[in-house]
Amino acid sequence: MNLALKLAYDGTSFAGSQRQPGMRTVQAELEKAIGVITDQSPDEIGLKLAGRTDAGVHAQGMVINFETHRERVQWVKALNSLLPDDVTVQAAKGVPADFHSRFSAIGRTYRYRVLNRETPDPLERLYQAHQPKPLDRARMQRLWRELVGKYDFAAFCSTGSPPRSTVCTVTEAEMKVEGDRLIFGISAPSFLYHMVRRLVGTILEVGLDRMSEDTFRALLTGSGKTGPTAPPEGLTLMEVTYPSPWGWD
Amino acid sequence: MNLALKLAYDGTSFAGSQRQPGMRTVQAELEKAIGVITDQSPDEIGLKLAGRTDAGVHAQGMVINFETHRERVQWVKALNSLLPDDVTVQAAKGVPADFHSRFSAIGRTYRYRVLNRETPDPLERLYQAHQPKPLDRARMQRLWRELVGKYDFAAFCSTGSPPRSTVCTVTEAEMKVEGDRLIFGISAPSFLYHMVRRLVGTILEVGLDRMSEDTFRALLTGSGKTGPTAPPEGLTLMEVTYPSPWGWD
Repeated sequence: MNLALKLAYDGTSFAGSQRQPGMRTVQAELEKAIGVITDQSPDEIGLKLAGRTDAGVHAQGMVINFETHRERVQWVKALNSLLPDDVTVQAAKGVPADFHSRFSAIGRTYRYRVLNRETPDPLERLYQAHQPKPLDRARMQRLWRELVGKYDFAAFCSTGSPPRSTVCTVTEAEMKVEGDRLIFGISAPSFLYHMVRRLVGTILEVGLDRMSEDTFRALLTGSGKTGPTAPPEGLTLMEVTYPSPWGWD
Repeated sequence: MNLALKLAYDGTSFAGSQRQPGMRTVQAELEKAIGVITDQSPDEIGLKLAGRTDAGVHAQGMVINFETHRERVQWVKALNSLLPDDVTVQAAKGVPADFHSRFSAIGRTYRYRVLNRETPDPLERLYQAHQPKPLDRARMQRLWRELVGKYDFAAFCSTGSPPRSTVCTVTEAEMKVEGDRLIFGISAPSFLYHMVRRLVGTILEVGLDRMSEDTFRALLTGSGKTGPTAPPEGLTLMEVTYPSPWGWD
């Protein structure tokens, strides 16, 4: 059976999602818990993740899959009883043999949260970035919406892992304001490394009036220098979407 | 000058608000930071807190006050640069000489959050309780509203610190439902030790159909056995109110 799991995790205490020797990662915790149930080594389990999240980045809807012969296990309950408090399985589902959490995905949605007021909020400090200076929110909102479309995001891609193409198609981009909280939502079939955090770090420069809207727009053709990469704690992978028979609903 | 400060803190890593020898407390962190500015010992500062919160309990609107001769300090900025990330000063205000954060207070508002779905949410695990079983939410909502009034809450008071009177006047009580999240709000001039957590723990018994509504009502006359004390992480002290010239607005 090809089993898909939907995960939520608090990235604060993880060195990221992907297995790395000697580090505490989401993948390593899952492989440990699955291995207890299936009596397999990490390599035998062959876990596949829909995507990679960095240290400090959170997820509400990460999807993973692996092959297993244990068909009668109550996977959600069994795994949650074995997993640490900062990662939980939200749902489990048998999927077709050719389902691959990464390659079958047709969309990813991220959320980035910024608290925009003078004093930080200690109760949400691990789940949002903090910008104490006044921001031109209306301007940011307009400009963020312009991200919908097909652009060359080369300028927003951190070096280190050069992808085949730096062109991405953003299908949704909305910035909501809830009191002092700015919530950036963005969806695309795929993203470049650090792209969302770099986009947020750059639009904050526009909101602070340190960068013009036209300079921001020029970056979407691949030229110019972006703002800094916004910190990881504000970012959450909200959802990974698949063609309809593989959906979760 | 009599200086009042409004604080927010994440109670997770504190042994509570009140100073205790050898423990990490909110009061001790504040006294350390204030002492750096005023060059005083904790006893010389004479910090007064509006109330006590237990280990794991949070605050968005705790109020404290103390006398100081340093009138030209930018207290919010100065203290936040010295305090650890899990406690911050939200506002500072000179108040009349006879203002006492605890004795001048005329109201306190608490919020208690419960996630009511099968799987826990790792991103909010430190800020809400989790009840995986189905709850009769409409019934709880009706009953929680009945708390408004003057009752003998003796049954809901943890032993250890017997107060002069166990009669409290609840001025507001509302339970909101936001998707899977139940948010209990309650206001009163004062509360007994563990009263809010015990009220929530008991109304959850009613929601689980383990206690009748009439048994709950009988507890408000001081007789009977309550449910368990709900865990600390769901509780946040939201606001302490004062007669109008001392307000924060």
